[in-house]
Amino acid sequence: MTNSLPTGATIGILGGGQLGRMLSVAAARLGFKTHIFEPAANPPAAHVADRVTTADYDDADALKAFAAAVDVITYEFENIPTTALDLLETLRPIRPGREALRVSQDRLTEKSFLRDLGLKTAPFADVSDLASLEAAVADLGTPAILKTRRFGYDGKGQARIKSDADIAQAHADMAGAPALLEGFIDFSHEISVIAARGADGQVACYDPGENVHRDGILHTTTVPARLSGSQRMDAVLMAGQILNALDYVGVMGVELFVTPQGLIVNEIAPRVHNSGHWTQNGCTVDQFEQHIRAVVGWPLAEGSRYADVVMENLIGSDVERLAEIAKERHASIHMYGKAEAKPGRKMGHVNRISGAKT
Amino acid sequence: MTNSLPTGATIGILGGGQLGRMLSVAAARLGFKTHIFEPAANPPAAHVADRVTTADYDDADALKAFAAAVDVITYEFENIPTTALDLLETLRPIRPGREALRVSQDRLTEKSFLRDLGLKTAPFADVSDLASLEAAVADLGTPAILKTRRFGYDGKGQARIKSDADIAQAHADMAGAPALLEGFIDFSHEISVIAARGADGQVACYDPGENVHRDGILHTTTVPARLSGSQRMDAVLMAGQILNALDYVGVMGVELFVTPQGLIVNEIAPRVHNSGHWTQNGCTVDQFEQHIRAVVGWPLAEGSRYADVVMENLIGSDVERLAEIAKERHASIHMYGKAEAKPGRKMGHVNRISGAKT
Repeated sequence: MTNSLPTGATIGILGGGQLGRMLSVAAARLGFKTHIFEPAANPPAAHVADRVTTADYDDADALKAFAAAVDVITYEFENIPTTALDLLETLRPIRPGREALRVSQDRLTEKSFLRDLGLKTAPFADVSDLASLEAAVADLGTPAILKTRRFGYDGKGQARIKSDADIAQAHADMAGAPALLEGFIDFSHEISVIAARGADGQVACYDPGENVHRDGILHTTTVPARLSGSQRMDAVLMAGQILNALDYVGVMGVELFVTPQGLIVNEIAPRVHNSGHWTQNGCTVDQFEQHIRAVVGWPLAEGSRYADVVMENLIGSDVERLAEIAKERHASIHMYGKAEAKPGRKMGHVNRISGAKT
Repeated sequence: MTNSLPTGATIGILGGGQLGRMLSVAAARLGFKTHIFEPAANPPAAHVADRVTTADYDDADALKAFAAAVDVITYEFENIPTTALDLLETLRPIRPGREALRVSQDRLTEKSFLRDLGLKTAPFADVSDLASLEAAVADLGTPAILKTRRFGYDGKGQARIKSDADIAQAHADMAGAPALLEGFIDFSHEISVIAARGADGQVACYDPGENVHRDGILHTTTVPARLSGSQRMDAVLMAGQILNALDYVGVMGVELFVTPQGLIVNEIAPRVHNSGHWTQNGCTVDQFEQHIRAVVGWPLAEGSRYADVVMENLIGSDVERLAEIAKERHASIHMYGKAEAKPGRKMGHVNRISGAKT
């Protein structure tokens, strides 16, 4: 593969959910074809992708055929089985690369990486058994949160410890999985920076958005976020530092807590991110196209913003409000094509725009 | 069919070119599936559509199966064979309806329709043979343009008559096709209004764009156009009058000449329009989604504009500039996925944005 793929080439995407769907649309906009690899039948991305392979991540033949049919591989989620990556990376370039996955797949590795970069994180301690959990709680105090080191998302794999009385239950909730205790952070609000780094090392960031969660799932992202000019600058510099340290190629979501002591990194996600969906309606090039540009070795676009945006996730029965939302005259609706609305399932999102010129 | 289709329904699109492609993406954004009907193999829309039927417009079985598989039918071009429409309209609703097609498929019918509405058009005369052409030139004077009544686009089917000496050649160029002579219009520039009308009769227009043609093909559209406030208002009102008179449902492109005597209607196109591609980067909801909203009976969005935009078509060898354009940091690229660049073939377009907030 050359460093830069020509329009018309095929991008392989591991994962066929809504992020893969929106990546496919962005790729098509630049004239690229997409090929989705996804174990589940009829995934959201299938409706807009050029090809779909339905197979498990341990199906070596399917992985080989997929790799042979594409020019470069990217992904929409970070928990790709290691064995699949081991096979695929011998056949085609994978962007972002393994180092970003290695760091972000394990909360302990991620926190250590960030701390080693000199960035602030929540205080944390490795928890391998009940004794180490008790010692960690004694050290970090309560309240604290116990999290599995791997496979957590949208609040899953987490247990709050408000007092010593919660320790036993929290330990039981982990079911023996390696875990991490995070100390309490007194933050006023959470922001995220959607940052991109090109194959040439160029970094471009979007204006930080302010996130509100509900039941452990992102509810809204608002741009502009409540930030001073220097906080905004700090946030962007921290994101750039992380991407450069990982020699990263692609879009990353960097979640930060705003505290009186400065910005604290909550977590990083080596992929397009729910808190960056607002870029679809506020920017020349959205996070999905920015990611595709990086993956195919094209120059990044600038992350300039042309409107104020509030992104709201439509989760589960929220879709029942769709007819009402469609009546709003400044609302851009993005549905994921999922047939059935279940509690907690992300069905779509809406970007509400303000600040029109005419 | 109900008046309003729920997300998840299937929209049939006649024609699989770039307009069908961009309509498919817009439909997917709202959670609709698309099914393309197109005689040519591997059309641009196929890469992003849920299903494709490859068949001719005289294949009744294919048309019936297509209609059975979709909930509503729309189209990306106006020259659909009448027999196909006759069959399809007995099976599924077609939006926009037949009246708009009847009027716009024939330049003489279209000009007469506009004149009957009280709108200004270029002076015109029906031409059926050499004698009627000579009489029309004597009446309207030179320069004038002879155009076929049907199947003309991008400057095809047209012959300029600068003086009486050109009459014979122009007549020969028409090859016996029914034609129309249009008199000379002294205009300063051309604009177009991208107007939409919902199933509920609601009308929404985008800010008019200013068009520059090159070799008979649209080269650039710039918003805002050079227009006074009252001209802008006039343009929008004229478009609304046309849509209402046709009981139109969908997006229409209305081309107008700006003259010292006011706005003169050049032509109308009952579909999304090349001069509306700028809306993809300047508006909450672009012309493609606006059209889909109308076709499925959803409320229209407002056509508010958040940025200044210059759209440039990438035609034929223009794609050789793609690597350079990708380096521009405020350029949004839209490629159509066509394998081969031929002279005059529309390969993509670029929207250059200005007026960022941050």
